[in-house]
Amino acid sequence: MSKISVLGLGAMGSALAATLLRNGHSVTVWNRTPARAEPLAAAGARIAASPADAMADADLTILCVVDYALAGRDLVNLTNGTPRDAQELADWVAAKGAAYLDGGIMAIPPMIGEAGALILYSGSTALFERHKPSLLALAEGRFLGEDPGRAALYDLALLSGMYGLFSGFLHAGALVVSSGAGMSDFLTLLLPWLEAMSGTLPDLAGKIDSGLHDRNVVSNLAMQAIALENIVRASREQNVAPDFINAMRRLTAMRVDQGHGGDDISGVIELIRRLE
Amino acid sequence: MSKISVLGLGAMGSALAATLLRNGHSVTVWNRTPARAEPLAAAGARIAASPADAMADADLTILCVVDYALAGRDLVNLTNGTPRDAQELADWVAAKGAAYLDGGIMAIPPMIGEAGALILYSGSTALFERHKPSLLALAEGRFLGEDPGRAALYDLALLSGMYGLFSGFLHAGALVVSSGAGMSDFLTLLLPWLEAMSGTLPDLAGKIDSGLHDRNVVSNLAMQAIALENIVRASREQNVAPDFINAMRRLTAMRVDQGHGGDDISGVIELIRRLE
Repeated sequence: MSKISVLGLGAMGSALAATLLRNGHSVTVWNRTPARAEPLAAAGARIAASPADAMADADLTILCVVDYALAGRDLVNLTNGTPRDAQELADWVAAKGAAYLDGGIMAIPPMIGEAGALILYSGSTALFERHKPSLLALAEGRFLGEDPGRAALYDLALLSGMYGLFSGFLHAGALVVSSGAGMSDFLTLLLPWLEAMSGTLPDLAGKIDSGLHDRNVVSNLAMQAIALENIVRASREQNVAPDFINAMRRLTAMRVDQGHGGDDISGVIELIRRLE
Repeated sequence: MSKISVLGLGAMGSALAATLLRNGHSVTVWNRTPARAEPLAAAGARIAASPADAMADADLTILCVVDYALAGRDLVNLTNGTPRDAQELADWVAAKGAAYLDGGIMAIPPMIGEAGALILYSGSTALFERHKPSLLALAEGRFLGEDPGRAALYDLALLSGMYGLFSGFLHAGALVVSSGAGMSDFLTLLLPWLEAMSGTLPDLAGKIDSGLHDRNVVSNLAMQAIALENIVRASREQNVAPDFINAMRRLTAMRVDQGHGGDDISGVIELIRRLE
């Protein structure tokens, strides 16, 4: 079993360290506020006096803090950041002759060590292979290649998908509760509807990849623009702020004005993606 | 079998009329542009000369046009509109001594008459009961009570949920394709992730109904605000326009500033819902 140090003992870092302890690893922990380390010490972890102390004899150091601050030898960084953050830290770590793996945790702390948790990794293949058993004890792992920024990009893209889901849920919720109905009751309609609509995403993904947004279109942007106007009008009638629906309404109308009213909703991506 | 008229033969009206014909009803159709009625005439429908002609001897008239314009005796209105539109038409129809049922079609035209299609109804219970077999031949039906605006409200709330899902999908897609990766590949990560995140909605719905956003919070708004900043920063790095993520970032930060950093994401609804 490896000697592993975990730096940063927020809810996620603590869950990672506890899972590694349960898996029989020798775990050293460090946190800016030492009290956070005490429950882990009771479970068998060694408390390090400093990050350098924690990393000194670790086979693997896992970094899970809110901001970037530290480095090590075999360093896995599970901090949420941008692809550029990851690239910059990878360069800095590489300059010190150490290996770097970046990871994005797609789970909340209680899921660590349980089925359903996923961590995306990218960076050093050698490091990933070297510590695979330890890493796979934390969560299912998906290695996305040597670009250290790729895991962060996919992490943030997945979060973007989630925040879109939540935006729609909150706008729907505001309409429903503003009419005096209950949101939990409404969910019996919303959940199967969202599942059905998720079923259209593979077709939309194909249209994004091909750039052919006008093939096999069932509800085109010109029709959807009318529905979006109705949503905004109904929101105004219900005194619900349209913040979460405005961008889609504005971009859809812009795309129609540009002569793409026959396109599928996938075509809106052309207004926000990087221009080639 | 009933005599049913369908007014408005866009893709949806045509799908409704064809399904009713297949179910053995005597169907009369009318459309502003008569050519649209020809395939249905070939399948056995009678083409009416005017809306009044279509409604003259119909047991049930189904209205499925883009804008409000017409009325009848037993009138089911499946036009997408706001709750106030529905209420106004219901009042107008009631003043003429006719019964009114409003409906929101939660399906695309090819789904009509097939499993998985749903129509939300509200308004006249008597009309709904009188024509239940004809209506249930079109799609699964859910009667939401006598408020004629309720079906439209729930329809638009469900569409809001869908547009949120699509917003998140498109922002995720813009990040992914701007990095040179393919969206179809990325979906193998996104779809199970969205399904997992949908699993958190019942808990969030309970928090909305109770107003207690600070109970059993795993990822609080203060943490989520950091992730949202990272998404916006990564979007800027990738030259992706942040339109679809900006509202969530701004409202989350505002809620944290107001002293609710310990709340769950459900708390953001308090910034957009109708004030009591």
